[in-house]
Amino acid sequence: MIKAAILGATGYAGAELMRILSGHPHVDVTYPASHSYAGKRFSDIYPGMKGICDMELREDDISKAAKEADVVFLSLPAGIASAIVTPEILSEAVVIDLGADFRLHDENVYQTWYKTEHHAPSLLSEAVYGLPEIHRNEIRGKRLVANPGCYTTCSIMTLYPLVKEGLISTDGIIIDAKSGTSGAGRGEKLSSLFCEVNESIKAYGVASHRHTPEIEQELSEAAGRDIVLQFTPHLVPMNRGILAACYAHLLKGVSDEDVEKAYSMYADEPFVRLVSTPPETRYVKGTNLIDISYTIDKRTGNIIAMGAIDNLVKGAAGQAVQNMNIVFGFDETEGLQRAAGCPF
Amino acid sequence: MIKAAILGATGYAGAELMRILSGHPHVDVTYPASHSYAGKRFSDIYPGMKGICDMELREDDISKAAKEADVVFLSLPAGIASAIVTPEILSEAVVIDLGADFRLHDENVYQTWYKTEHHAPSLLSEAVYGLPEIHRNEIRGKRLVANPGCYTTCSIMTLYPLVKEGLISTDGIIIDAKSGTSGAGRGEKLSSLFCEVNESIKAYGVASHRHTPEIEQELSEAAGRDIVLQFTPHLVPMNRGILAACYAHLLKGVSDEDVEKAYSMYADEPFVRLVSTPPETRYVKGTNLIDISYTIDKRTGNIIAMGAIDNLVKGAAGQAVQNMNIVFGFDETEGLQRAAGCPF
Amino acid sequence: MIKAAILGATGYAGAELMRILSGHPHVDVTYPASHSYAGKRFSDIYPGMKGICDMELREDDISKAAKEADVVFLSLPAGIASAIVTPEILSEAVVIDLGADFRLHDENVYQTWYKTEHHAPSLLSEAVYGLPEIHRNEIRGKRLVANPGCYTTCSIMTLYPLVKEGLISTDGIIIDAKSGTSGAGRGEKLSSLFCEVNESIKAYGVASHRHTPEIEQELSEAAGRDIVLQFTPHLVPMNRGILAACYAHLLKGVSDEDVEKAYSMYADEPFVRLVSTPPETRYVKGTNLIDISYTIDKRTGNIIAMGAIDNLVKGAAGQAVQNMNIVFGFDETEGLQRAAGCPF
Amino acid sequence: MIKAAILGATGYAGAELMRILSGHPHVDVTYPASHSYAGKRFSDIYPGMKGICDMELREDDISKAAKEADVVFLSLPAGIASAIVTPEILSEAVVIDLGADFRLHDENVYQTWYKTEHHAPSLLSEAVYGLPEIHRNEIRGKRLVANPGCYTTCSIMTLYPLVKEGLISTDGIIIDAKSGTSGAGRGEKLSSLFCEVNESIKAYGVASHRHTPEIEQELSEAAGRDIVLQFTPHLVPMNRGILAACYAHLLKGVSDEDVEKAYSMYADEPFVRLVSTPPETRYVKGTNLIDISYTIDKRTGNIIAMGAIDNLVKGAAGQAVQNMNIVFGFDETEGLQRAAGCPF
Repeated sequence: MIKAAILGATGYAGAELMRILSGHPHVDVTYPASHSYAGKRFSDIYPGMKGICDMELREDDISKAAKEADVVFLSLPAGIASAIVTPEILSEAVVIDLGADFRLHDENVYQTWYKTEHHAPSLLSEAVYGLPEIHRNEIRGKRLVANPGCYTTCSIMTLYPLVKEGLISTDGIIIDAKSGTSGAGRGEKLSSLFCEVNESIKAYGVASHRHTPEIEQELSEAAGRDIVLQFTPHLVPMNRGILAACYAHLLKGVSDEDVEKAYSMYADEPFVRLVSTPPETRYVKGTNLIDISYTIDKRTGNIIAMGAIDNLVKGAAGQAVQNMNIVFGFDETEGLQRAAGCPF
Repeated sequence: MIKAAILGATGYAGAELMRILSGHPHVDVTYPASHSYAGKRFSDIYPGMKGICDMELREDDISKAAKEADVVFLSLPAGIASAIVTPEILSEAVVIDLGADFRLHDENVYQTWYKTEHHAPSLLSEAVYGLPEIHRNEIRGKRLVANPGCYTTCSIMTLYPLVKEGLISTDGIIIDAKSGTSGAGRGEKLSSLFCEVNESIKAYGVASHRHTPEIEQELSEAAGRDIVLQFTPHLVPMNRGILAACYAHLLKGVSDEDVEKAYSMYADEPFVRLVSTPPETRYVKGTNLIDISYTIDKRTGNIIAMGAIDNLVKGAAGQAVQNMNIVFGFDETEGLQRAAGCPF
Repeated sequence: MIKAAILGATGYAGAELMRILSGHPHVDVTYPASHSYAGKRFSDIYPGMKGICDMELREDDISKAAKEADVVFLSLPAGIASAIVTPEILSEAVVIDLGADFRLHDENVYQTWYKTEHHAPSLLSEAVYGLPEIHRNEIRGKRLVANPGCYTTCSIMTLYPLVKEGLISTDGIIIDAKSGTSGAGRGEKLSSLFCEVNESIKAYGVASHRHTPEIEQELSEAAGRDIVLQFTPHLVPMNRGILAACYAHLLKGVSDEDVEKAYSMYADEPFVRLVSTPPETRYVKGTNLIDISYTIDKRTGNIIAMGAIDNLVKGAAGQAVQNMNIVFGFDETEGLQRAAGCPF
Repeated sequence: MIKAAILGATGYAGAELMRILSGHPHVDVTYPASHSYAGKRFSDIYPGMKGICDMELREDDISKAAKEADVVFLSLPAGIASAIVTPEILSEAVVIDLGADFRLHDENVYQTWYKTEHHAPSLLSEAVYGLPEIHRNEIRGKRLVANPGCYTTCSIMTLYPLVKEGLISTDGIIIDAKSGTSGAGRGEKLSSLFCEVNESIKAYGVASHRHTPEIEQELSEAAGRDIVLQFTPHLVPMNRGILAACYAHLLKGVSDEDVEKAYSMYADEPFVRLVSTPPETRYVKGTNLIDISYTIDKRTGNIIAMGAIDNLVKGAAGQAVQNMNIVFGFDETEGLQRAAGCPF
């Protein structure tokens, strides 16, 4: 058994991590911490966990956490992780950061999109972008894992085979994504109230959402050239789930078989399902899966590729556990669910 | 007072028409008809209308309807309207068809997308495409109005100014649309069950949805050249509302002012609001409004224009009443709501 | 035209009042006020009202409001109305209070349930309990109307005929009520977040909800004896609507006809519908109606009477307008909707 | 490993059973059967199970099922199980019936409420009412387990301690229950459509719901006298969950400690949580738990006891697995989840 700390255990992603780890055979959460609720029991904040995790929440002190635990998960607002993670911390514990601070390789890009200075640019080269299906080998043995964002996991994985194999134009890519409301977090904001979200849909962050450069970084790397793309997120009246509709122009001469072959890179992945009809978020709810489908439209010359994930699992806590499993040499699927209830 | 007949009064669009007309100062519904429920009271099928409309539903016989009424609304499955509307019918009553049969000018396009023969190609030239903000003058005095589809109303109106003024590339237009579940109708289908729709989002009809050629027809006409575009609809767990995110590449040299000026064509429209943040379907729920916003992304060179309507009102019954108001010379806004409740 | 002021125009009930009055033929809202948003446009806070009401919000100063307007609506937190309404105010304007401060005749009962002193006990005798179907004649000519609560309107109206006619045991009455989430208001509370409300149901305020004494007061008055009853509210994942299931023991010898006759007191009421199947909140959504049904269970000896309203309309803003119509001698139904959309 | 058959594997309860058993360490589902979908893959019907269970669905032939499997689960419409279960079947396999046919000990009561003859009255004495927390010892070694209904599990468990210990009046008990929509099943009915359920709440089966006699049977047995009670179910716009609000009059002299002591019968139960605030269905979603709380109202003399379960788990498939675990001597909690995600 390894020991785990979670800083930010009472946000939705942190709580999902608590839930997943409560069923993991090789991990004990020994240091659940919360800035807002330190001193209270976890199950006071999440009554659904009464009897499963009644531990007292600790102060969110990364030094203590790293001393007591083998792995420290960070689920904190942007800008905090880079201020508290140091080489000393990394020498004591593996850090898996569910936030954005270590995802972008270039601190200037970070500053442009996050409108704030990066506190630890020297650590950026220590970090690995923790998307196992793409960077599995680099993740092994790393001390600092930057767990990808929810929209980004879904978007990158959906488009990656096409970009990697050079089947689509790298100009004009459009990603129209839709997310359940848990993606907005547990903050007490007017825009997150039931009556403000229910029975409506809207876009937000048009042309400015911070997940854009993360998607561009990974796809540019795959393409071997700079990709600039359009990313638009939407808020959907449901608890969980992300659906990304990705539009791209197929290059001339690309056959259906070429596309099929490109996606076959996922054939043996335990958490990827290639499906023949457009994916639905309900089919991956609660699981660490991504469902991907694509349609080639001969009339327009476009390919429409779609991916669906659970934003709190494959888009956050589940992928963090997958990364942990890789770093510590456990079976990569350990503790992670694949069967979605229906309806759920 | 004029007399109105409604064939297909118990579908969601037909029932919304019943509701709107029940409050219209110049119209009496004298012939509400239903294939499935003839002989029952309308309020037996829609108990919310008890005491407001308890009329008995008639057989859906267009000859009787046209004889008894000044205007006949058709809210019927595809392929039926073209089989029952004749010059004789049109000589007796104005026909406003909420279905698709008279929307496409070219019967071959109809057959390609609807996979069925058109029963009355000779009437196509008699019909006007009933989008008042674009075809108002042609609607006046017409006997046969093809009321536009829900997705199409929203998509065309959102893109029209850009296309008409030649500000965007006519290649590569992408429309990613999202609809509430009432758009799927009142049929007893597995895919429309609460537990199959709730807490999920999915695309459907990818590269094949029948509203595509309707959008292309109207935008091609505006552009003066053939436009082929990508249209993708999604199903959202909410009762009402359509949101269309429209992506296009701005032509070189087009300024922000050019775009603003193009959209100013709607400045005096009673049912169009240009809004400065992405539209939300809840703000037009129950109304005949369309809210439109746009964002110019200098980074990608794209314009992202968005429109939001209530699919059953501006997308169906409300627009049908707007068309009726025009044909009969009533105030165009008569009987139509503009103030949305919140939350609703 | 009369002039209306609304203090608390940006809460859900206040905003619904704004919306209803925007369509009222005899009323101009000239003084919309908000403590939190004074200085902003109403349509900045409620974008759905853009183009319908773009007035600037005023300070919530009752003296100014009463001077400028003929009627002042108060939609304020408990304890404020009684601190600001004075005989002078009442001499200048009619006050219709959507809050609780003037509903209970006995200040001691108020203090017991609201845990705070009443600021204007001397005005309690000036106030009328504004439930038109029961107190219509007393409302006419009053200067201070205490608009009933949402749960209370629904519960009292459902049980009143049975109590008034002495058909049920006044012991053991149980009211199990369910409300949409708009009843919790627009405050930025964790418990009102989409993700905390959606996909769940819970009771709250068990044995302690403040609407209890209000229901007891009115039913005791009807019975001519003190009634103590059990009231339990629940939170339902929907925007609007209240359903009250009321359980009582029928007295011996009471026939079905006796019950039917008792409910016939509502036969000519424009906003009451007696329905033969259990009422559904959707059928009254957006309207000022209450739907009532009852079932007599010979097996248990109980009568189960049920009522359904829209909590923001008949349960708040709509009933306030109904009261205003009565006080000012307008047609009681003016400006109030009776036809519910479906689905809405 | 034992082998399991499921007849009716594609209804919501059957599919949940498939999902739960797919993670059970001691069970292989070898015979999933479906009347409607025989010959198709299970994951064609439930795409969320793609890659987890792609078995072909068999004909729903109980003889074959019993021959091939050690345990046969039946999830069939009322009246079918009693027509196909025979002593021969029971000699070959344990039968756990999720339907109603073997729950009522008295065939006359069955006929009264189900309006149909019972096909196998002689087997009623062979069956055990499979509520483990109450009948655990009788379940062990049985060949025929009648798995309780969803409403009944929740209602009986919530009231049982009070009745068993004689703390409440057995007259006048009222159960007001609320259920998510999966309880209505997967049938293609108008009343189950998204747009007919969403944004509304209603009661149904008032004074006539078939779960009534089941609750009365178990509580009468506990009381040692006949109990007749009022049971009212409601439909809530959510996928899963049952909340039962149970009202009863506390007998004179009963102290808070008496009540606390009565509920302590559940202290060691792995699937019962006594909670101090009103239970919320979301906290048990996906789990086999029941959360129970109670409030004693000195003012009315009533106790309001509330229980919350997931109707498809503790109310159906989960409890069936719990019963299977008992019959076959596995750890009772094997394969059953206790940690609910939040939000889910």
